[in-house]
Amino acid sequence: MAEAPQAGPSIEQLNARLAKSPYNSWLGLAVTAIGADSIEMTAKWREEWVVNPAGGYTHGGILAALVDVVADYAIAAKNGAPVPTVDLRVDYHRAARGDMKCVGKLVRLGSQFTTAEAYVYDAGGALCASGRGTYFTAPPAPAPATKS
Amino acid sequence: MAEAPQAGPSIEQLNARLAKSPYNSWLGLAVTAIGADSIEMTAKWREEWVVNPAGGYTHGGILAALVDVVADYAIAAKNGAPVPTVDLRVDYHRAARGDMKCVGKLVRLGSQFTTAEAYVYDAGGALCASGRGTYFTAPPAPAPATKS
Amino acid sequence: MAEAPQAGPSIEQLNARLAKSPYNSWLGLAVTAIGADSIEMTAKWREEWVVNPAGGYTHGGILAALVDVVADYAIAAKNGAPVPTVDLRVDYHRAARGDMKCVGKLVRLGSQFTTAEAYVYDAGGALCASGRGTYFTAPPAPAPATKS
Amino acid sequence: MAEAPQAGPSIEQLNARLAKSPYNSWLGLAVTAIGADSIEMTAKWREEWVVNPAGGYTHGGILAALVDVVADYAIAAKNGAPVPTVDLRVDYHRAARGDMKCVGKLVRLGSQFTTAEAYVYDAGGALCASGRGTYFTAPPAPAPATKS
Repeated sequence: MAEAPQAGPSIEQLNARLAKSPYNSWLGLAVTAIGADSIEMTAKWREEWVVNPAGGYTHGGILAALVDVVADYAIAAKNGAPVPTVDLRVDYHRAARGDMKCVGKLVRLGSQFTTAEAYVYDAGGALCASGRGTYFTAPPAPAPATKS
Repeated sequence: MAEAPQAGPSIEQLNARLAKSPYNSWLGLAVTAIGADSIEMTAKWREEWVVNPAGGYTHGGILAALVDVVADYAIAAKNGAPVPTVDLRVDYHRAARGDMKCVGKLVRLGSQFTTAEAYVYDAGGALCASGRGTYFTAPPAPAPATKS
Repeated sequence: MAEAPQAGPSIEQLNARLAKSPYNSWLGLAVTAIGADSIEMTAKWREEWVVNPAGGYTHGGILAALVDVVADYAIAAKNGAPVPTVDLRVDYHRAARGDMKCVGKLVRLGSQFTTAEAYVYDAGGALCASGRGTYFTAPPAPAPATKS
Repeated sequence: MAEAPQAGPSIEQLNARLAKSPYNSWLGLAVTAIGADSIEMTAKWREEWVVNPAGGYTHGGILAALVDVVADYAIAAKNGAPVPTVDLRVDYHRAARGDMKCVGKLVRLGSQFTTAEAYVYDAGGALCASGRGTYFTAPPAPAPATKS
């Protein structure tokens, strides 16, 4: 952590990156604010998100994707770019509907792997899901053949 | 576990249920086989799944959705219907491309909570992701107002 | 959550409960502070905690126990008593030595299950482990025979 | 995976390693069998394991430790030695008492990260807990200063 105090990527740079990713774009993801070790993002509801037409609730797999991306973008806001997810835990707190507001936070930034978390709220501010993941923040290996 | 040996839902019944769910339908999910405590399903790739056009890899949020649904449908194959996901863990093993084949298994069927797991393979049979979740298999509460 | 603003258990009451539990007592656990939705606890190192004599580091299973108990006692500080753990996730951030300071927090208090988290620090304040669990906060079932 | 078919460590070698670890020794852990991608171990009950004297049940933190060690020793049986745990998930299936029998299995052996799982049974063969972890199987870094 001996880096000089660097300027991380801007909101515009992160949103440009999101826009180039087909699934992130399909989720309607946008960064709205960047904090010291945190990020705020929004996701735009679409009818394909629904798990069951009767309730109109959003599928848990959508909420899992939001937790994954938002935690990863908390890392991106610090380090410059999202990194591979090693594993993910998602807790479902209540049924979700409509657009989502998300907050991502670093739990512990490491040189090899990083723990980050995310909270997903509905438009009324109710916490619908949250979770944390392990992300692979190791620098590129010196020899290229480490990934089988 | 003292139930009479019951006939669970058929493949056709589970597929009809999947077809009514917008996101499960969007994922191209279909049940292909039902075992004693397991299920096999397939998911049909679409270009919106991609996380990054350069690699063409499937987004981790899609794989998380597959783990969630397939583990839940292992329960559905036993109990008749999918149930709410309490929480989910997903491990990412390798980058995924194309259609997916999935296997779901019961780890422990409980009266209140059930643990089920899922394995997601690419067309070549390589394991790309796996995970497990806690599912809420409690019978409907006697009083209706237990869900806040 | 329409309860009147109640006085939860005192630090002394929670410590008396910990003292009656053989393993919690063996871990040297004590509550030092109670917040609105949080708790602070300490754990007293013993040589049996060590995973490897060369490094003198604390075993990950000890840190997992601390995450489990401390998150559960954040619930106990609110609801009066610890409740069964449904599942647990623990992230290991750095090697730990010596006595530990722990902070537990409610993520989402539910009527049926509750998500709580915990952070485990060494004496120097470095975060060594953290995690979250699902706890079963349902009221006792009306009929006694729900546990198979 | 292009290694020559190597002879992994013997049961005696793994047990000698366990015996040198204070907490693994305190848990009474012993390897009883080694399979192709799996391991069987036993753990010897002691009264300090109890969470609550009334029920005599084993503390969840003990079961978490068993899941962690047994999954790790499935890796050790393959690679020669246990490796650092990155993160852990444990599911609690039923209250446990007495000595435990454990089975560890590789889910996916990787060059950098490995997923392994474990199942913990009581003497009667009932599954009491299970879980999986991410373990850090990367080769030692070329430069020594990568671990902060």
